[in-house]
Amino acid sequence: MNFCNHCGQPVSLKIPVDDNRERFVCDSCGLVHYQNPNNICGAILTSADRVLLCKRAIEPRYGLWTLPAGFMENNETVADAAAREAMEEANAQAGPLKLFGVFSLPYISQVYLMFHGELASEEISAGRESLEVGMFTRDQIPWEELAFPVVTHSLRLFYEQGVKSVHHAWFSRDADRKVTLNIID
Amino acid sequence: MNFCNHCGQPVSLKIPVDDNRERFVCDSCGLVHYQNPNNICGAILTSADRVLLCKRAIEPRYGLWTLPAGFMENNETVADAAAREAMEEANAQAGPLKLFGVFSLPYISQVYLMFHGELASEEISAGRESLEVGMFTRDQIPWEELAFPVVTHSLRLFYEQGVKSVHHAWFSRDADRKVTLNIID
Repeated sequence: MNFCNHCGQPVSLKIPVDDNRERFVCDSCGLVHYQNPNNICGAILTSADRVLLCKRAIEPRYGLWTLPAGFMENNETVADAAAREAMEEANAQAGPLKLFGVFSLPYISQVYLMFHGELASEEISAGRESLEVGMFTRDQIPWEELAFPVVTHSLRLFYEQGVKSVHHAWFSRDADRKVTLNIID
Repeated sequence: MNFCNHCGQPVSLKIPVDDNRERFVCDSCGLVHYQNPNNICGAILTSADRVLLCKRAIEPRYGLWTLPAGFMENNETVADAAAREAMEEANAQAGPLKLFGVFSLPYISQVYLMFHGELASEEISAGRESLEVGMFTRDQIPWEELAFPVVTHSLRLFYEQGVKSVHHAWFSRDADRKVTLNIID
């Protein structure tokens, strides 16, 4: 960040009065530009023993498989965001969504809010951000071609521990960029 | 938003290529400025039958009582954010925190992530954003002087339904600014 989005003048990193960390503050009008984590909302959508996956048509991880998920938008709920992403990425109509997991990824300042629900219809097709979409049994899932650790871990938790309680965990990433799941409750 | 925070030139509201909603886009460098919901992390911290509340020393709702809670910062987990807020607002050391509720407030583009835990120590005192802090039994809580509907509803859910499962709900606000709790699961 270089300039104030209110008045267009340069900003500097400084600790504002009554604050305790550095923010971008406008040198001219004094506006403080806060930067905060983003939520990513997604869903494990099932039909009988199969799960919906999307093959990514966008970077990062072009060509790898993922659960439908994306950045939460203003003026929607977390569940609405997950349902919207399923529609955008797979033209998939989600039934009622139940909270499945809350996963913090502090190393990239993201929080995943994952849901589980039944597909309301098996009519699915690739949206603009997907090369293809499909329904997979546990054995059919391309475990070695999943796009993100949070996707792999969500699917593992789904199969190994089910949906009876909400999973709360965080991911850490070491210097070798190895990502580890830390289960809280 | 009037100016690009990358190059300082004016922005305009337009729908970017491959997008489906209006964003602020720089007329000069083309940068898209996404605006997304913010997370507020907080906690119901207990000691025996009493709950920690803070009397707000800042606007909005100066002088009203609240649970310790505040905006999640980059590079922290949701639980770390809740513990940090308890320390900042009440010099309160939280024990292990368990996810209590996820509450969407789409009308102000916020998501509350509330936790429950025991206080690690009864040594509490007002932080910079609090006029005073205190421990309250259910009957002692100043129910008519609570700062936000999400605080009132969190405390009600805590007493009426407990902490055995994670509460998932959203709040709606009508034209008269009346806020309603909508429980999902």
